[in-house]
Amino acid sequence: MAAQNICGLYTMCLVQEGDSILLMNRPNELGFPGYLAPGGKVDFPESMTEGAVRELREETGLIVRPEDLIFKGIDEYVVPKTNYRYMVFNYLAREYTGNLLTNPPEGALQWVSIQDALELPMQPWFKRRLPLFFEKGTFEISVVWDEDRKCSIEDKIKVLGCNLSL
Amino acid sequence: MAAQNICGLYTMCLVQEGDSILLMNRPNELGFPGYLAPGGKVDFPESMTEGAVRELREETGLIVRPEDLIFKGIDEYVVPKTNYRYMVFNYLAREYTGNLLTNPPEGALQWVSIQDALELPMQPWFKRRLPLFFEKGTFEISVVWDEDRKCSIEDKIKVLGCNLSL
Repeated sequence: MAAQNICGLYTMCLVQEGDSILLMNRPNELGFPGYLAPGGKVDFPESMTEGAVRELREETGLIVRPEDLIFKGIDEYVVPKTNYRYMVFNYLAREYTGNLLTNPPEGALQWVSIQDALELPMQPWFKRRLPLFFEKGTFEISVVWDEDRKCSIEDKIKVLGCNLSL
Repeated sequence: MAAQNICGLYTMCLVQEGDSILLMNRPNELGFPGYLAPGGKVDFPESMTEGAVRELREETGLIVRPEDLIFKGIDEYVVPKTNYRYMVFNYLAREYTGNLLTNPPEGALQWVSIQDALELPMQPWFKRRLPLFFEKGTFEISVVWDEDRKCSIEDKIKVLGCNLSL
């Protein structure tokens, strides 16, 4: 039997309304402080879109139908030493219903213009991923991490199918 | 720390040339007999597209650049009893170089018309996935398997972002 990987599977869902996107301003005490799109761990055995829809509802109150999600790409972080692969499946939603929570659990919710968003304080890995949601096609970000030297060995960003019509 | 999943990560790459696609006719002795698109297990720590490009080259001789792959969807099979998730990342390639192998390792290679392909003998899970490569948007096929009763508990096919322009 082929060797198996330990996977951490996560989703991120960026909600777009015209020229604005919905971000959470995560406080320091929750970790990963700064502006971030909603998302989180995929529960077992739910699918990637089920996880994305659930996390969005829990963190913002907004409801998106899975078929209205647009798959935008994978961001992964792979650690050969521990045979671990951390993968984030990224979606864009431009259709939704519901109202924003008044006491969101993961940080205050804020609509910000796409143009201004990159000026906000945010984690560097989210900052580089954010513009890719608005490119044609899908992205694949792949970081290979050396656990002994505590540095990345490889760090690749690809945009797939960006000049194709399907 | 959150519970982790054991993952089997695979790719499939369907090469299209006009109205034809490239399939392998897998013999009985290799398992999964019938017509099938090239693909296989993602090695560690390669990325999904690196895996897809390598498998295509090994099984057909054709060379595709990762950025010419079009991400078409995920087909997954989840087993709650063993905490196992088997995921196939599916790509379409309409640009390639190289020549077909004369002695391909996994089955004879054959260009077949898209229209005729579904009449060929093939695994049922490939037969239902194949038309989705030619739909707009991306697909998510998700089967939850009951290991005790040997049957699927859930079986869902979603097409995402099919009426959106991005």
